[in-house]
Amino acid sequence: MATLSSTTIFRTNSYTNLYSYSSASSLINAQHHRITFSSFPQRFLSAKVSVQSLLNSNQNVLLMQDGAVATTVTPLENERPLTKLKDGLLPSIVSSEECKDAVSSDNNGCESSLSITVVGASGDLAKKKIFPALFALYYEDCLPKHFTIYGYARSKMTDAELRIMVSKTLTCRIDKRENCGEKMDQFLKRCFYYSGHYDSQDNFAELDKKMKEHEGGRISNRLFYLSVPPNIFVDAVRCASLTASSGNGWTRVIVEKPFGRDSESSAALTKDLKQFLSEDQIFRIDHYLGKELVENLSVLRFSNLIFEPLWSRQYIRNVQLIFSEDFGTEGRGGYFDNYGIIRDIMQNHLLQILALFAMETPVSLDAEDIRNEKVKVVRSMRPIQLDDVVIGQYKSHKKGGVTYPAYTDDMTVPKDSLTPTFAAAALFIDNARWDGVPFLMKAGKALHNKSAEIRVQFRHVPGNLYNRNFGTDLDRATNELVIRVQPDEAVYLKINNKVPGLGMRLDRSNLNLHYAARYSKEIPDAYERLLLDAIEGERRLFIRSDELDAAWAIFTPVLKELEEKQIIPEYYPYGSRGPVGAHYLAARYNVRWGDLSLEQ
Amino acid sequence: MATLSSTTIFRTNSYTNLYSYSSASSLINAQHHRITFSSFPQRFLSAKVSVQSLLNSNQNVLLMQDGAVATTVTPLENERPLTKLKDGLLPSIVSSEECKDAVSSDNNGCESSLSITVVGASGDLAKKKIFPALFALYYEDCLPKHFTIYGYARSKMTDAELRIMVSKTLTCRIDKRENCGEKMDQFLKRCFYYSGHYDSQDNFAELDKKMKEHEGGRISNRLFYLSVPPNIFVDAVRCASLTASSGNGWTRVIVEKPFGRDSESSAALTKDLKQFLSEDQIFRIDHYLGKELVENLSVLRFSNLIFEPLWSRQYIRNVQLIFSEDFGTEGRGGYFDNYGIIRDIMQNHLLQILALFAMETPVSLDAEDIRNEKVKVVRSMRPIQLDDVVIGQYKSHKKGGVTYPAYTDDMTVPKDSLTPTFAAAALFIDNARWDGVPFLMKAGKALHNKSAEIRVQFRHVPGNLYNRNFGTDLDRATNELVIRVQPDEAVYLKINNKVPGLGMRLDRSNLNLHYAARYSKEIPDAYERLLLDAIEGERRLFIRSDELDAAWAIFTPVLKELEEKQIIPEYYPYGSRGPVGAHYLAARYNVRWGDLSLEQ
Repeated sequence: MATLSSTTIFRTNSYTNLYSYSSASSLINAQHHRITFSSFPQRFLSAKVSVQSLLNSNQNVLLMQDGAVATTVTPLENERPLTKLKDGLLPSIVSSEECKDAVSSDNNGCESSLSITVVGASGDLAKKKIFPALFALYYEDCLPKHFTIYGYARSKMTDAELRIMVSKTLTCRIDKRENCGEKMDQFLKRCFYYSGHYDSQDNFAELDKKMKEHEGGRISNRLFYLSVPPNIFVDAVRCASLTASSGNGWTRVIVEKPFGRDSESSAALTKDLKQFLSEDQIFRIDHYLGKELVENLSVLRFSNLIFEPLWSRQYIRNVQLIFSEDFGTEGRGGYFDNYGIIRDIMQNHLLQILALFAMETPVSLDAEDIRNEKVKVVRSMRPIQLDDVVIGQYKSHKKGGVTYPAYTDDMTVPKDSLTPTFAAAALFIDNARWDGVPFLMKAGKALHNKSAEIRVQFRHVPGNLYNRNFGTDLDRATNELVIRVQPDEAVYLKINNKVPGLGMRLDRSNLNLHYAARYSKEIPDAYERLLLDAIEGERRLFIRSDELDAAWAIFTPVLKELEEKQIIPEYYPYGSRGPVGAHYLAARYNVRWGDLSLEQ
Repeated sequence: MATLSSTTIFRTNSYTNLYSYSSASSLINAQHHRITFSSFPQRFLSAKVSVQSLLNSNQNVLLMQDGAVATTVTPLENERPLTKLKDGLLPSIVSSEECKDAVSSDNNGCESSLSITVVGASGDLAKKKIFPALFALYYEDCLPKHFTIYGYARSKMTDAELRIMVSKTLTCRIDKRENCGEKMDQFLKRCFYYSGHYDSQDNFAELDKKMKEHEGGRISNRLFYLSVPPNIFVDAVRCASLTASSGNGWTRVIVEKPFGRDSESSAALTKDLKQFLSEDQIFRIDHYLGKELVENLSVLRFSNLIFEPLWSRQYIRNVQLIFSEDFGTEGRGGYFDNYGIIRDIMQNHLLQILALFAMETPVSLDAEDIRNEKVKVVRSMRPIQLDDVVIGQYKSHKKGGVTYPAYTDDMTVPKDSLTPTFAAAALFIDNARWDGVPFLMKAGKALHNKSAEIRVQFRHVPGNLYNRNFGTDLDRATNELVIRVQPDEAVYLKINNKVPGLGMRLDRSNLNLHYAARYSKEIPDAYERLLLDAIEGERRLFIRSDELDAAWAIFTPVLKELEEKQIIPEYYPYGSRGPVGAHYLAARYNVRWGDLSLEQ
């Protein structure tokens, strides 16, 4: 490991026994709920140093609140050569630097092993996201030296068959392809398959045995990814917990939505899971939180002076959270029809982004501090009123000789389904910062484009000298901050600008940060980030049970009302801009959807 | 003229007799100092309508403070087609729309004529800037129907010779070249030459006679551009005023710097000019005020909510006004040596930009309102202390086999000259908004690049959660707004951003508005804008005598002290980044020059 000559930041590693650096109180914290000791992975700091080099140095070491030991640091970015900066592109960054040291081994020389079990290995999510993300982490040297991956599912399959299945979806990062084939082979050699029932303790006990063989007596850390339908969650957790938990390391379980259908079923699920797992073993994944620009949201807001003063009802007129897909259920409506777009997108993805956007400044970037603020802001929100929701469902549409199907044309969907494939809703946060500011959400399938973005529309300029240059529609003359989460990541700020020329004509131009133009590096998939976080015990991007409760509290009443009253969705053509009802909802709160205006 | 179907803005034209629309009080104003009646040319409004159509309509007409008659308006920009907007480029705008109606004729049918006399027609400025700007205005249909241009100088020349001289520098706008040759011929036919002495009333009387012939009995408006050395100003103004003034229209005189060498000589010049001209006949030009991005400064600030709240000592750490040329005096040091860089650039160009930047919000965009605020902010500034100035002079430098000359190698410069070719200064505004904020100016010749820009460095983020991600140099982590006036016009905002990837590394990225990428139209030369303004009687971008006095009050004491104490300039190599003393001056006020940092 490299030693920085003069200035260093160092974080004690929670997997080690090197507790002699920390005070007694932080030691105690480390074993309780706050887990401050392990809550800030080393890759979030700018520089690294080995324990040994720290021990040998005379540096002025300061033990920080979260267990990090810090002195001043020379950041890597100052070392970038002028030439590279001048052309506007950052050099491709070797990510392995960002995570290698944190997970590869214990600092005291006693190596640990990591076993990752993908429960439901033959499913779509596993094939398309989980295995590829694991390979990407391996490719970037982000996995520890001794790791093994297990596919677990009911179907019969050999290790070789699993490897063939997995290999089909593996790709190498576009910006460094060297040794890709070789790396794939090495990765696949670490993948094993075990066929078993999800509710069989015996089968999990056999998996445990298989794991122990590979662990070879090392400290054993185990991660279970439950990529199975929700009705299997509890059985699988019970079996894994009772017969396949680690004896001397940690055991963590990643679960993915749906976390119930409403407040009650969610609470029941949580209660059931907690029979077998403690809260800090449960990693509730919301993959939107792993997206690059969602991660960047807090950076933009809290590290830039120009934004924070504007971040309140005083300057922000409304906030829009928009998600759209340009395809329908396409034969996979079975799961969806039981949930609908509000549960599938709004209650989790959009609400999570909203919470990150609107929360008060956390005490620190530690997971518990951030989640404390998120839960506060979600709890300050009013339950949604039926009046403040518009639901829609796509219908068949013929265009260019092609007939696009209606939602109810999907064979897996009941013909009389009223499940919304589109919804728009107005939400309000009843706290001092956001009182009266409409937060509008919109999510839909089978729309005209695919996108996810946050739009912040600012208020009118008071006493605007240039009002007469704008014409009548002053709403269009206000500033807007757009954070485009996907596709084609970008941040842009719409400002009013003088059109060059002899007159005084104003237009809206964009102050633009387009990721593809600025950063040469491929942006990692959300699952990579989240898997790595789970391995490192970083909970910042996972949802705590009280957050989940608060989220359901906002949506449950209106969901029940929609279903009890059998509200008919507004039909919209496949590939269209969605029901016009969304405009009327926006208009009620003096909002204009930014994504549907001429100048996006 | 086009009539807008439903909504219109209309401004009464000061050259007309159509005063029946205005109240008695605004009529009186129109003939006095404030000239509100003519202070907002029609091209600054979004739409046009003829008087006749207004008379014939039933529209709800509102007489506004500055003499404009307004109803609501449908702005032209709303009519732009989606396709043009989508590709990110504005359609090339027909500028003629912006000015044609304002100057082409009187609305009552009695046509006026315009005679423009370039006094000092054989000089460099006339050839390179004034005649080309006049042609550009003609080419864009911005000159009235009956205009004539006169070159006036001592040397003997025929009309034909003048036309040949002028034609050599004419170019057509790159974005519309049709009929360019034809337009040139037509323009040149309107150009005449008259040879005379600058102090001869007789000669000017003969010019008057020549003008009258062309005016043909129409209302006669006359504009004199004094493109002559300052010692000739008063003589030429006396002769022009006494024997070549208009009898029934207006007479205006454009003068360009230097307006004296210090407070006393400037006051004397003003006094002398005012013997023959009223203040509102004098158009003191500062061509920096005609530059596109200087014009845009007020738009950016006052029409965008996101900027105005930040525009004070609370958020702004320092402001930098930077001018650099990459060439020396190159044989033209005669004039310069008597003035030096502080008088040549700082006291006028940079101070004018500073005043526009820092002024309080004016009551309106009318010339007098803006100039009232500018003079207030300049009067709030402390005279510069000697300690707060660094001066430099370039010395010879050999590079790549080429020897670049020292300033004193210029044959037109005394060998022992101490005249500064570079200066940096710290200025302070003692008012509530700017108390304690350093405004740093830097100007120099023979530097490594050519540029003019405004840099606004914002304060640190209080309680920044991400401090540890920046390393030691927090100054580099603050936001910065850069307005690049020339070359390659741009506005960009440096923000902190998360570098994509699994770690939490921050960098500074730019939210960028690059004019060349956004606007397809060529940006007009500053002289075009200013000449058109003078023709239209728009004084917004010209300097009033009290502004001039206030500007000299800031610089005169230190200029005298530098000269009395014979302060030796710090020598810097031709083509370098200037004296290092500028860094020490900045450091004293905790400032780092933004233009010399790695990440510009």
